[in-house]
Amino acid sequence: MDIATLIGLVGGTALLLTAILSGGSALMFVSVSSMLIVAGGTIATVFIRFSMVEVVNSVKVALNAFISKLSVPQEIIQEVVNLANIARKNGLIVLEQQPIEDPFLKKAIMYCVDGHEAEFIQEVLEKEVTLTVERHELGQRVYKGMGDAAPAFGMIGTLVGLVQMLATMDDPASIGPSMAVALLTTLYGAILANLFFLPIADKLALRSEEEERNRKLIVQGVLGILRGLNPRVMAEFLETFLPPKQRASTEER
Amino acid sequence: MDIATLIGLVGGTALLLTAILSGGSALMFVSVSSMLIVAGGTIATVFIRFSMVEVVNSVKVALNAFISKLSVPQEIIQEVVNLANIARKNGLIVLEQQPIEDPFLKKAIMYCVDGHEAEFIQEVLEKEVTLTVERHELGQRVYKGMGDAAPAFGMIGTLVGLVQMLATMDDPASIGPSMAVALLTTLYGAILANLFFLPIADKLALRSEEEERNRKLIVQGVLGILRGLNPRVMAEFLETFLPPKQRASTEER
Amino acid sequence: MDIATLIGLVGGTALLLTAILSGGSALMFVSVSSMLIVAGGTIATVFIRFSMVEVVNSVKVALNAFISKLSVPQEIIQEVVNLANIARKNGLIVLEQQPIEDPFLKKAIMYCVDGHEAEFIQEVLEKEVTLTVERHELGQRVYKGMGDAAPAFGMIGTLVGLVQMLATMDDPASIGPSMAVALLTTLYGAILANLFFLPIADKLALRSEEEERNRKLIVQGVLGILRGLNPRVMAEFLETFLPPKQRASTEER
Amino acid sequence: MDIATLIGLVGGTALLLTAILSGGSALMFVSVSSMLIVAGGTIATVFIRFSMVEVVNSVKVALNAFISKLSVPQEIIQEVVNLANIARKNGLIVLEQQPIEDPFLKKAIMYCVDGHEAEFIQEVLEKEVTLTVERHELGQRVYKGMGDAAPAFGMIGTLVGLVQMLATMDDPASIGPSMAVALLTTLYGAILANLFFLPIADKLALRSEEEERNRKLIVQGVLGILRGLNPRVMAEFLETFLPPKQRASTEER
Amino acid sequence: MDIATLIGLVGGTALLLTAILSGGSALMFVSVSSMLIVAGGTIATVFIRFSMVEVVNSVKVALNAFISKLSVPQEIIQEVVNLANIARKNGLIVLEQQPIEDPFLKKAIMYCVDGHEAEFIQEVLEKEVTLTVERHELGQRVYKGMGDAAPAFGMIGTLVGLVQMLATMDDPASIGPSMAVALLTTLYGAILANLFFLPIADKLALRSEEEERNRKLIVQGVLGILRGLNPRVMAEFLETFLPPKQRASTEER
Repeated sequence: MDIATLIGLVGGTALLLTAILSGGSALMFVSVSSMLIVAGGTIATVFIRFSMVEVVNSVKVALNAFISKLSVPQEIIQEVVNLANIARKNGLIVLEQQPIEDPFLKKAIMYCVDGHEAEFIQEVLEKEVTLTVERHELGQRVYKGMGDAAPAFGMIGTLVGLVQMLATMDDPASIGPSMAVALLTTLYGAILANLFFLPIADKLALRSEEEERNRKLIVQGVLGILRGLNPRVMAEFLETFLPPKQRASTEER
Repeated sequence: MDIATLIGLVGGTALLLTAILSGGSALMFVSVSSMLIVAGGTIATVFIRFSMVEVVNSVKVALNAFISKLSVPQEIIQEVVNLANIARKNGLIVLEQQPIEDPFLKKAIMYCVDGHEAEFIQEVLEKEVTLTVERHELGQRVYKGMGDAAPAFGMIGTLVGLVQMLATMDDPASIGPSMAVALLTTLYGAILANLFFLPIADKLALRSEEEERNRKLIVQGVLGILRGLNPRVMAEFLETFLPPKQRASTEER
Repeated sequence: MDIATLIGLVGGTALLLTAILSGGSALMFVSVSSMLIVAGGTIATVFIRFSMVEVVNSVKVALNAFISKLSVPQEIIQEVVNLANIARKNGLIVLEQQPIEDPFLKKAIMYCVDGHEAEFIQEVLEKEVTLTVERHELGQRVYKGMGDAAPAFGMIGTLVGLVQMLATMDDPASIGPSMAVALLTTLYGAILANLFFLPIADKLALRSEEEERNRKLIVQGVLGILRGLNPRVMAEFLETFLPPKQRASTEER
Repeated sequence: MDIATLIGLVGGTALLLTAILSGGSALMFVSVSSMLIVAGGTIATVFIRFSMVEVVNSVKVALNAFISKLSVPQEIIQEVVNLANIARKNGLIVLEQQPIEDPFLKKAIMYCVDGHEAEFIQEVLEKEVTLTVERHELGQRVYKGMGDAAPAFGMIGTLVGLVQMLATMDDPASIGPSMAVALLTTLYGAILANLFFLPIADKLALRSEEEERNRKLIVQGVLGILRGLNPRVMAEFLETFLPPKQRASTEER
Repeated sequence: MDIATLIGLVGGTALLLTAILSGGSALMFVSVSSMLIVAGGTIATVFIRFSMVEVVNSVKVALNAFISKLSVPQEIIQEVVNLANIARKNGLIVLEQQPIEDPFLKKAIMYCVDGHEAEFIQEVLEKEVTLTVERHELGQRVYKGMGDAAPAFGMIGTLVGLVQMLATMDDPASIGPSMAVALLTTLYGAILANLFFLPIADKLALRSEEEERNRKLIVQGVLGILRGLNPRVMAEFLETFLPPKQRASTEER
């Protein structure tokens, strides 16, 4: 799992718990019905907004994004330049026997080996990249949708509590505690949205961008192999995808 | 009807009712005049924003989107590849006798049979896709417009109630209940917008995107048939529109 | 006048009046100084934001949009196909004598009759469409600007009232009524923005889109006439601009 | 100076002063420390957001925009058509002796006289238009940044005042006046943003658009002169930049 | 360090301190637990949103942006025109021995010396510019993310404080001070976001735009050298990147 995410989630939660516990009993912050309104309302709108399949998928996508490790771009460049060297010496056909881990690179190389035209390969691969990005965006949208719904249902719950309190305002001593309970849903909604849903949506967006960059790198590399580009020139070109400090060949200059 | 939407709408409503009932009498949450302000104001602005025809259409579009079933992309690919195979063996003319369910695919094939040029067919079909998307967007805009108006009129109703309460503040005991009633319009507006209008607008957007993807798939497929593309290559190309797990031909590799 | 707009404006206003009157005297909702702050502040910012000419124009544009009737796209298609038939039989020159109501279509046909090149006509007409859209957007911006300013000055007025009330809080009995008056500006601003300015801005946007679609239709049609397109093919192509149910020729298929 | 802006600024300020004075002494609306927080905080963030030079420039740009008069597009068209006529009769070289007021038109004509190629001239002029627009946008951003900062520091000031009041709440009679003072910063921030900064930013945007349109007109005109376009055809083409009512040649038809 | 930023940060902080101290003891504005919630919550979400590396990088990027001096565009133009003159007289190869400070210009010239084709050089350099901009955007996003999170956790902290206060409302005298403490987190969040995070994010955006403009200038200049453009023409073209007053060659006209 991505370490920064873990630190953020655990640290943020611990911090809030500390702040709550330092003020006395934590029991006053627990209200089952408030949790039901916020969590239930958020889930309900997610079901209306998206289809069953998409909700399930988005959870999988998020888990996958946090657990699976993304390829490091330097390694991809290394591998692509390596394949370019092999193709230069022994021809494209030999690439078929090369062990390639990345499934997208594997597929792209297979298209080359099959002898498709460069335009077709470029079109198919770029469409694939575009559509992968669109699928990832759906996952982010589910989390973003939850981040929008949670504060809204927090406010709805608080309004319900306020109406109940104001309509039956017989005992002045109960006003304070009743209002405390009414505010809890707003608090739950704010925490869920700002500590969990919205940051996770942002993280997914970032992971998706990184994967998109990796895939664009592969597309450029494979097109270079097809065009018979000089591997050294190709390495230099592909390294423009990296921040200056992580570049190898330019450094040597 | 789309099951997720049904679950969301019924579940969310049930949840809110439970929260309200658990706090005692539900009667204090009923105010006919509050409902009139929120619902009436929302409907009034929808009529100003859009034309008569568009309001009626948007309701139809929404109902249609929830009831009608969208074609599954895999089946469309299957059918298009099938047609490509037939066209390859027996020529384009034979396609006229093929039974085609999807009206858009039917129309596209008819253009091929009529012998129009590829550029013309592409132009007409792509314009059709664009304009369908624009029409769908109008339906979403109506719901989005209601989602914007409902909280605004909720606030207007609460302000009206507050002014009435404050201007005639003779009996301190009546302040609480009066304010409870004043808050009801804000509550109504928040529920209408966040549980119904905005999620439905999002769902329509999603359905529209799916239909757009299906139609783009058909456009690509029909253009492939016209160009006499190898059906196996075409299947591979069209399957890039699907998430990796749902692909058939690539899986076999 | 556009019926839906009329229903919305009158109905929404009637509804609010009912809600106000049902709570007793309507006099407590009238405050001349509050009206001055909201209306005056809104108008002042409109004058700063836009130039004299634009403010006057935007009122004209709005009136015009509500009163004048837009051409129905089906009739435009009918007329263009008609002209195409005439041009096919008797040449382009004859079109000069045809009575054409729509001034934009008239102008486009005149360009053809004058013997300009197709590229020049397309360039001039498309520029005209773009610039018309830009001019319409200015009208919407004026209303949108008022929709932003009205709630802001409503809040400013309420703050002024609150400061006056709080600074001279000698008689507890006057607190309620003073606050009621202070809240009136917020109420006025919310009603002006949400019932009038913002919906009218949206309506203008919609009208502008419809007019843009009509003009694009004319541009496509006139270019088709110039290219000597088969009128039946042209009708089919132009009807992709319409929703499926309103199409004539495709229906006959 | 632009009259509408003057009317708006003076009128809006007068209106607010009237509303304040009608409520009794205006002294309760004066708080030097509140002014310091709002004005100082706004200026501080402007200095962080932008560089010294840009802040100074934006003030100059704003003054310039309000004082200097923009060329009227009709006059530009007149002048360009005039130059086209001269160039047609006596050749491009003669244009050098023509007195041209507008510096951008002067520069464009000089490029023609110097015998540069049409592509080069178009590239240079269009780049110039784009970069002028970018420079203007910076001026708007400074005012927009102040419009965002003023209400934020208004809220910060009010929070500071509230904390001070609540922490030392010994004399109940002082609560009202203390809160009145605390609210003043919010009031100042709202007035500064809504009556001054945001409308001025919008006005600058509008001026910039008008200047962009004038310059695009010049670019099109000069390219027409280079291509030796018929001056009458050019006049017609350039007039599509104007609203229909302001067109001369088309009117004559 | 950038002077305007320093003035803004120090001035704004001093101003707020003055306002706070002028109201009596500053101690009432210090709450360690409030600081923990706002700062801790903000940092926690930053860790969830971004990866470890990115958080560290963004701090470096910000420091770098404030300390390092950006090349002045006039000097770049001077240097490029100088190189163009040398290349014209002695050929491209000689450029290798020229001392070039700017690393991006150095790299671009090296590509020319190496004899790559113009298309390849343009593609590589433009990709480099695009990707540099993307890397800079990440730094801004980190600060913008903190600017969004700080007020949210300010509100969360205030809600926690309010719930604690309301639930244990036994001593009326403690209500004021408790509420003052509860409001502190909102105040901290507002100050952090509006005085530090958001303005810094904007400053980074501006720096990034300036660097982008410098690099685009270099790309255009190097392509001009490759094409053998007349240095005087090139100087004129490159100066369109500058505001009119800073131009040298055009001024001489």
